[in-house]
Amino acid sequence: MEWVAIVTVLALLQCALFSFMVGRARVKYQIRAPAVAGHELFERSHRIHANTVEQLVLFLPALWLCGWYLEPRAAAVVGSLFLIGRQLYFNHYLEQPRDRGTGFLLGFLATLTLLLGALGGAISSLILH
Amino acid sequence: MEWVAIVTVLALLQCALFSFMVGRARVKYQIRAPAVAGHELFERSHRIHANTVEQLVLFLPALWLCGWYLEPRAAAVVGSLFLIGRQLYFNHYLEQPRDRGTGFLLGFLATLTLLLGALGGAISSLILH
Amino acid sequence: MEWVAIVTVLALLQCALFSFMVGRARVKYQIRAPAVAGHELFERSHRIHANTVEQLVLFLPALWLCGWYLEPRAAAVVGSLFLIGRQLYFNHYLEQPRDRGTGFLLGFLATLTLLLGALGGAISSLILH
Repeated sequence: MEWVAIVTVLALLQCALFSFMVGRARVKYQIRAPAVAGHELFERSHRIHANTVEQLVLFLPALWLCGWYLEPRAAAVVGSLFLIGRQLYFNHYLEQPRDRGTGFLLGFLATLTLLLGALGGAISSLILH
Repeated sequence: MEWVAIVTVLALLQCALFSFMVGRARVKYQIRAPAVAGHELFERSHRIHANTVEQLVLFLPALWLCGWYLEPRAAAVVGSLFLIGRQLYFNHYLEQPRDRGTGFLLGFLATLTLLLGALGGAISSLILH
Repeated sequence: MEWVAIVTVLALLQCALFSFMVGRARVKYQIRAPAVAGHELFERSHRIHANTVEQLVLFLPALWLCGWYLEPRAAAVVGSLFLIGRQLYFNHYLEQPRDRGTGFLLGFLATLTLLLGALGGAISSLILH
């Protein structure tokens, strides 16, 4: 499961990086906590990070269950597509929120693949043992 | 732990479904990203999903630790109450936010039961081994 | 891994407590759902909890991977610094948002240490086996 662990750490570091961008935008556009609105570019950063956290909550358990019940290296490969999707989402959303669909979809389809793999794997394991 | 894995995947699919409802409400009520306010019914969908993500962050580790240190099938049964609670929360909140208490409480008590089971199981295991 | 499990349950109970504070502030300052703005002190509670959820999503996988691939008791000790950091963050943010930095930083550095430990441990394990 080492490759699964490495993909996990990279996804978490990516999310931590996105949270730094929110902090930087907060300073740059002078949005004082606890406010989370007031400048379009701050709000974009904030929504990118919030959406990434929401997606990680689905992605990480799906990645590990698919890796455990089906095949760890295949799960790690699909998992790395999630990272690419999130990077596209970040880049496009920041430039033009309308264009965020492609990156979101790539990440979400990776998660859905892992979720269905996990479900199939767990049910097989239940029947066979 | 297969039943625990199956309950996990179902909870994640339920959360993914709630996130689709947010996306649909975003289109229907024409709330342009990055805005997250502007129409009462969009805001309800958005809060239902955000609250579900917050609860999953507590629920999933509690489910797995209780399943591991105490009893997996009992944990899966309590875990399925979480899913029912979240469905009630979704249905009631969308209709009338004031009525969201019952579903929230059912889900939260399931999580709390699992958390206390996990704590007791881990402490027992620490003492016995 | 029992100490890692105990630190996990304590971090989740702390987060549940923060969510109760949001509920209490919602009643006290009469912020009707689905609104999440309208009174400075409610917004502070709400942001404390939201930020804690975001940090838990990074912290929990980092804690477990570092505990698994490096050393469980060391991971639990670093993990308990996260709890202290979050408590400082809560106390200071509620009083004066400007002072939230110290608690945030302590928690975040604990998470970063665990993440780097996890990455190093997983890579070592990949090379050695």
